[in-house]
Amino acid sequence: MTTLITGGTVVSATGRHPADVLIDGERIVALFAPGTGPADVPAIDATGKYVIPGGVDAHTHMELPFGGTHASDTFDTGTRAAAFGGTTTIVDFAVQRTGEVVQDGLAAWHAKAAGEAHVDYAFHMILGGVDDDALKAMDVLVADEGITSFKLFMAYPGVFYSDDGQILRAMQKARDNGAMIMMHAENGPAIDVLVQQALARGETAPYFHGVTRPEALEAEATSRAIWLAGVAADCPLYIVHLSASKALAAVAEARDAGRNVFAETCPQYLYLSLEDQLGAPGFEGAKWVCSTPLRSKHESHRRDLWTGLRSNDLAVVSTDHCPFCMKDQKELGVGDFSKIPNGIGGVEHRVDLLYQGVVDGKLSLERWVETIATTPARMFGLYPRKGVIAPGSDADIVLYDPAGRTRISAATHHMNMDHSAWEGWEIAGRVDTVISRGTVLVANGEYHGRKGHGRYVKRGLSTYLH
Amino acid sequence: MTTLITGGTVVSATGRHPADVLIDGERIVALFAPGTGPADVPAIDATGKYVIPGGVDAHTHMELPFGGTHASDTFDTGTRAAAFGGTTTIVDFAVQRTGEVVQDGLAAWHAKAAGEAHVDYAFHMILGGVDDDALKAMDVLVADEGITSFKLFMAYPGVFYSDDGQILRAMQKARDNGAMIMMHAENGPAIDVLVQQALARGETAPYFHGVTRPEALEAEATSRAIWLAGVAADCPLYIVHLSASKALAAVAEARDAGRNVFAETCPQYLYLSLEDQLGAPGFEGAKWVCSTPLRSKHESHRRDLWTGLRSNDLAVVSTDHCPFCMKDQKELGVGDFSKIPNGIGGVEHRVDLLYQGVVDGKLSLERWVETIATTPARMFGLYPRKGVIAPGSDADIVLYDPAGRTRISAATHHMNMDHSAWEGWEIAGRVDTVISRGTVLVANGEYHGRKGHGRYVKRGLSTYLH
Amino acid sequence: MTTLITGGTVVSATGRHPADVLIDGERIVALFAPGTGPADVPAIDATGKYVIPGGVDAHTHMELPFGGTHASDTFDTGTRAAAFGGTTTIVDFAVQRTGEVVQDGLAAWHAKAAGEAHVDYAFHMILGGVDDDALKAMDVLVADEGITSFKLFMAYPGVFYSDDGQILRAMQKARDNGAMIMMHAENGPAIDVLVQQALARGETAPYFHGVTRPEALEAEATSRAIWLAGVAADCPLYIVHLSASKALAAVAEARDAGRNVFAETCPQYLYLSLEDQLGAPGFEGAKWVCSTPLRSKHESHRRDLWTGLRSNDLAVVSTDHCPFCMKDQKELGVGDFSKIPNGIGGVEHRVDLLYQGVVDGKLSLERWVETIATTPARMFGLYPRKGVIAPGSDADIVLYDPAGRTRISAATHHMNMDHSAWEGWEIAGRVDTVISRGTVLVANGEYHGRKGHGRYVKRGLSTYLH
Amino acid sequence: MTTLITGGTVVSATGRHPADVLIDGERIVALFAPGTGPADVPAIDATGKYVIPGGVDAHTHMELPFGGTHASDTFDTGTRAAAFGGTTTIVDFAVQRTGEVVQDGLAAWHAKAAGEAHVDYAFHMILGGVDDDALKAMDVLVADEGITSFKLFMAYPGVFYSDDGQILRAMQKARDNGAMIMMHAENGPAIDVLVQQALARGETAPYFHGVTRPEALEAEATSRAIWLAGVAADCPLYIVHLSASKALAAVAEARDAGRNVFAETCPQYLYLSLEDQLGAPGFEGAKWVCSTPLRSKHESHRRDLWTGLRSNDLAVVSTDHCPFCMKDQKELGVGDFSKIPNGIGGVEHRVDLLYQGVVDGKLSLERWVETIATTPARMFGLYPRKGVIAPGSDADIVLYDPAGRTRISAATHHMNMDHSAWEGWEIAGRVDTVISRGTVLVANGEYHGRKGHGRYVKRGLSTYLH
Repeated sequence: MTTLITGGTVVSATGRHPADVLIDGERIVALFAPGTGPADVPAIDATGKYVIPGGVDAHTHMELPFGGTHASDTFDTGTRAAAFGGTTTIVDFAVQRTGEVVQDGLAAWHAKAAGEAHVDYAFHMILGGVDDDALKAMDVLVADEGITSFKLFMAYPGVFYSDDGQILRAMQKARDNGAMIMMHAENGPAIDVLVQQALARGETAPYFHGVTRPEALEAEATSRAIWLAGVAADCPLYIVHLSASKALAAVAEARDAGRNVFAETCPQYLYLSLEDQLGAPGFEGAKWVCSTPLRSKHESHRRDLWTGLRSNDLAVVSTDHCPFCMKDQKELGVGDFSKIPNGIGGVEHRVDLLYQGVVDGKLSLERWVETIATTPARMFGLYPRKGVIAPGSDADIVLYDPAGRTRISAATHHMNMDHSAWEGWEIAGRVDTVISRGTVLVANGEYHGRKGHGRYVKRGLSTYLH
Repeated sequence: MTTLITGGTVVSATGRHPADVLIDGERIVALFAPGTGPADVPAIDATGKYVIPGGVDAHTHMELPFGGTHASDTFDTGTRAAAFGGTTTIVDFAVQRTGEVVQDGLAAWHAKAAGEAHVDYAFHMILGGVDDDALKAMDVLVADEGITSFKLFMAYPGVFYSDDGQILRAMQKARDNGAMIMMHAENGPAIDVLVQQALARGETAPYFHGVTRPEALEAEATSRAIWLAGVAADCPLYIVHLSASKALAAVAEARDAGRNVFAETCPQYLYLSLEDQLGAPGFEGAKWVCSTPLRSKHESHRRDLWTGLRSNDLAVVSTDHCPFCMKDQKELGVGDFSKIPNGIGGVEHRVDLLYQGVVDGKLSLERWVETIATTPARMFGLYPRKGVIAPGSDADIVLYDPAGRTRISAATHHMNMDHSAWEGWEIAGRVDTVISRGTVLVANGEYHGRKGHGRYVKRGLSTYLH
Repeated sequence: MTTLITGGTVVSATGRHPADVLIDGERIVALFAPGTGPADVPAIDATGKYVIPGGVDAHTHMELPFGGTHASDTFDTGTRAAAFGGTTTIVDFAVQRTGEVVQDGLAAWHAKAAGEAHVDYAFHMILGGVDDDALKAMDVLVADEGITSFKLFMAYPGVFYSDDGQILRAMQKARDNGAMIMMHAENGPAIDVLVQQALARGETAPYFHGVTRPEALEAEATSRAIWLAGVAADCPLYIVHLSASKALAAVAEARDAGRNVFAETCPQYLYLSLEDQLGAPGFEGAKWVCSTPLRSKHESHRRDLWTGLRSNDLAVVSTDHCPFCMKDQKELGVGDFSKIPNGIGGVEHRVDLLYQGVVDGKLSLERWVETIATTPARMFGLYPRKGVIAPGSDADIVLYDPAGRTRISAATHHMNMDHSAWEGWEIAGRVDTVISRGTVLVANGEYHGRKGHGRYVKRGLSTYLH
Repeated sequence: MTTLITGGTVVSATGRHPADVLIDGERIVALFAPGTGPADVPAIDATGKYVIPGGVDAHTHMELPFGGTHASDTFDTGTRAAAFGGTTTIVDFAVQRTGEVVQDGLAAWHAKAAGEAHVDYAFHMILGGVDDDALKAMDVLVADEGITSFKLFMAYPGVFYSDDGQILRAMQKARDNGAMIMMHAENGPAIDVLVQQALARGETAPYFHGVTRPEALEAEATSRAIWLAGVAADCPLYIVHLSASKALAAVAEARDAGRNVFAETCPQYLYLSLEDQLGAPGFEGAKWVCSTPLRSKHESHRRDLWTGLRSNDLAVVSTDHCPFCMKDQKELGVGDFSKIPNGIGGVEHRVDLLYQGVVDGKLSLERWVETIATTPARMFGLYPRKGVIAPGSDADIVLYDPAGRTRISAATHHMNMDHSAWEGWEIAGRVDTVISRGTVLVANGEYHGRKGHGRYVKRGLSTYLH
């Protein structure tokens, strides 16, 4: 079955041009100069719209167990929300904990997702216990399972934490098999000292979650990860949820030196702050408890992160989608911020929130497409199947309406959350139509998708490396 | 008339995918998944070839008057050589000298080029005398003449030199009208002192051309141009023919800060050196006298420039094609290196020489396409007409054969030069077929183009800015 | 005649210790552990006081012709004021203007000073016209005249300005004969453009003097001077009156690289600002028109300069004493800030103003002594004659009372100015006693000195170089 | 009893001047202009000699237990050797190991030293197990024991290693009580991985000790320590035995930012290399196994360290004296470099080896005195008792003969070692006379000192902080 998207402006990472896009089945099969495509095919009118590759969110945590509860979105609810927001691929994190067999963790994640997803999904693997078996498993996952990126934690001692020796060994393995190491870069042992001291002083409110995770300890860990990757013969390294100016400076320095070092940031770090959100009265700030934390508005973090997005020192915008409801979940930390489950839900809003940056003159239209779709697809071995409007690619397409408006509210969003981190925000732009492998999921504000449409995608090695 | 390029792998700045490309008249009209295009159309078999946008050389000097002679290539010979080398657009420099009317200089360049070119051409404008009239002319050229970039010189006092006040005024004007300032960044007044001192010491050989233009004086001027552009409210700035590590560091620092600062390098700086070429015995080194000069192989310049190409601190590779024959031209400087006409001819070899970087593992295939075609087109307002394989774009296409080989020699090249800067070099790759606006210029090593096929292209503003 | 200073705490650049100081005639002849000196000698009781070397102000402009008038202090009034403020040596600037013979300029300065000074004085030489004769004169001044430092200007085109070729030649000469190059580092040609544009917009108030001399143009020139000194084989370079963070960063980078690059700042840059002083209502701001200008309090300049003093990236605090009265002098610029004579008078207050930094915890006591006396003496070839309390040194000694207080006002100061840049400031400390070559000039607030006591001091080469 | 040192040139950290020095008992009581001191006092003729404060070696390990053996010098042999070499004060390291009571470790060190030392000695405290008790002990040692500096290790997991949480807590404590944190900055967990991998590959020779401790892991740890000290509200931090360019760069950056961050290097890093010494044939390289290791001569470490000494990014030169004999000690590591006791003996040669830097033009005479005596004394709370020639200071004085020569050999040295790290080195200079608290220990090459002359010195807080 074929469809022709007509009249739109195709936007790629390098430019924009009017073109008609022909879909046949699940794939894009042709691009035409406007009006030169087949006339006898059902058409979707994209006049006045941007035609962009479906969003790729490279950092989500559906149903993640954390702090005695689970992230509140399932693969069903979470990927449906993603679809509403113009994201047609997510890369979620399967989890191995200390002492577990890596493949068992992966199997558990396949079990959660199978038959549930509305859009395509892939997996990174979290290694919570790097040992000889886990190192061997890395090879297996790269070779057989379509998993080519492994996340380590310098934070959370006793939970996900790897020491520097473990990190080095995993990096050496990745260097050998071509995989990417992803790093949660915060100095956990030092943070734990600050947390205990704060609690001992009676500083228990959500605000102190931010204060006890200072910029210096993100910058330090980021810098350390880069040094260690260098010792591992320049193992490719990807810093997740970078939030602070000095961490960015460490990445920029490595990139100037030609290193395969990359970083993502998230919408929350681009717009929100320690004072205005985490510091909200009472327990309200718990909504924005996430790690790395929101940073002070009195410093230059947000300006610097936008600069980093322009300069490509930040290559990707992901959400770190990890939703928890206030009721029964975030509330676990009333009276002790360290017990608040860490995470913000945002998989539905990434494409819109970044488009607001285009409207505000902070990002070019091309760079918007690149950071939300093209680069994450290249970075994690999904390109050219995902992340680009090209013949042969999956027909994952979003029609974006620059004349539309989007209003964000828990009352209307599709994530399984009883609040929104972005309550009341308005975006000058709107996801108009969302197509996944040739199937229209969203059109005219209506949902046409279904659970089970989304499939697991085996990924190749990154094509973004030098 | 239509043609279908079949079986090739289209390479863009972000990736590669098999696709067939349909040309109708002068334009690309469609891209198809392999084998899905029209069957009844004459086909060019691109099996095993890369299908890339025609090269865009953003820095050439055809027939430039310099040092009492003229660059030895005319628009006829020079653009024919460009075509042979896979370059289908050049941006040459029209020249205003001190005291001249800017528009007169432009008219003179149109007169040289009209009816002579084999491939499309555009112009930058050199301003040798920034005054009130010249500033007004900048607005006119941007608005009416398709000239949106202006080159200034911090070198060559008494010839092209602008002082810092003139530079600042031109930058302010460019900031206002959206144009790009291009800068020859060398500290001319200081260099002139070193040159006079060297000659006074009897250091007259070509080698001393390099010694008297030290890295510090390129880095200083590069840094100064960046400071001045900052004073001009972040006027877009493009450093031409960057050759030295410390100049690159200045550019990188500005880019990390989110500035609209860009730079190009040239193949000669990536491969050749002060010692091996400029320091050749006798007067032989004169072949490689150009400014900025070749740098010492004992320092890290070449490695750093390749790094800069990967990190995008160097965005473009141009040639600074400015050929002079040894006989009667370079020979003007026997006994006095300061009288050797400055320039190296290379418009024919850029695409191949950079492809060698891909073979050597120094550059990705995508980055090759980006630096030789896509980015120069974006940088100088030619995109999406040039620099991309997309429906609606000019059908400027090169089929590149990775299995071919290219041997460079004055005996076989097509530039009007009695020697080659690259004599004897072999490249593991070959320009197979060259198409300009739908017309095959080169195929099977034969030339099918003609003088006058190339047209003047009015450029728009840069689409590469933040 | 001998005198013993008893009971005080001698403070040096490296520490403090109780000691008695024996003066015989013009020199210090011995230091004793407390109470162990000769008992039969007239004593000055320094109990509770710091005993420090007399201040060395390395940057003053007595009677400087500027903008159609002269700095309002003569060597008589200016050096008397210096004495009151604990400064027992000044280094003033003799001036050669374009076209003048260097030695004539020097002779003119000797004529101004001879028989007039209350404290010892030496000269730097300003070179306003670097040519072959001036370069030869440099050798003569170093060899015969005790002048081992030469100041050049990157600002003031048409007045003192040297182009980069002239600068390079003077630096090469200094490199050869061991002299120090001092640099007024502001990009004059660019500033002149901004000034003309501001005046054309009707921005004529003193505030715009600051706005038209932006940090970038000081940082640029500072950086350029450092590059040029590098080309001159690491000629020693001393940046005068550094006022801006980014200029400091350039100096710090050079110093980290082990370069013989030094800088001074002045009290006005440590305490005053563009907004609060230059931006005072009406024409009041004219009092603080000086170049480099006061910087914005909304940026980090003042904090960074104090940091630089601690880290020794700023080695010296001078005053750039160049006083003009409001009446008839500063008033020349009513309606046109560019006609306001540039300068602030402060020779009397440097020692106190910096001591306030000690009180505020911004500077150690040792560092105070080092920056106001020891390092300027070492830097400019006056050590160990000046700048240290040691046997054999000139008995230039200040007893400083940390329990005293100093209130600054035009009503009480001794400079020939009808206003004070520091009107109403109070310092927690006080110059108690001032001794110059064994003669008490100031004691108990009374003046015992006389015109003609001060002598010209021939300086040697810097002993501060690596 | 009094003595007058006559005819010499006193050299301080800021300059040199001829002066006679009067000693009365254990102290310096006066300095005189030449020839003006008392005539009736026994004199030591210092004509042609430099009169400098006795050397202060802030980093020695007498009798340190390490790797199953003990450092081969006792306080007797080691301090006697120090005296021969012009070092009149050492600061040794008392050791607390994990699980031990801090005060017990201190008592053990007092027991080793009491009655044994030939020169004065003080102690730093090594904390091998930071816990609540150890933190309390820090306060006690500062308040009562004259121990104001505490050393932590980022290397040696399972032996001296502290994790980042422990480090942070100790730094916070030091910040509160005014002490200095000293850091062995190498990433131990990562090094251990490299060591195990090397041994598994059969790389067992001493050379691989260096290879498995790469620069990156010293630079990383140095940088991390600086970040952590920042989190501890700018706790004063002193990096011991800095050996690598990139570690130095981290220190320099912190110092440019005005931080209380300091570093020492050792003679071995200034002169020796991975290839020439550690890479000596057979097991010979074991002589130079120390941590941090000797660095590659093909990189810029040695040049950069000298630069750092000049710029004060390196403030102190210590020896890290930790001698082991080849026989029975170093030989423990035959066939397994990881079992070679770490350490080089050099307490006897520091003053001479650094003076060679003066002769070579790498260091000024003043800076020599500053780095070997004045700054270590200031840094560690010994000034003005030690480190300066001033009335009231201990009469610890060295007469240094610039016309002498020193030849280093195991055959003639006084350390208890069966080899010398500097065998055959010749220095253009010589320690002529050594005086400790008024007692001549060395004169005319003869030893006049005795065991027990040296006393324990309680130290105050550092007087070197901002």
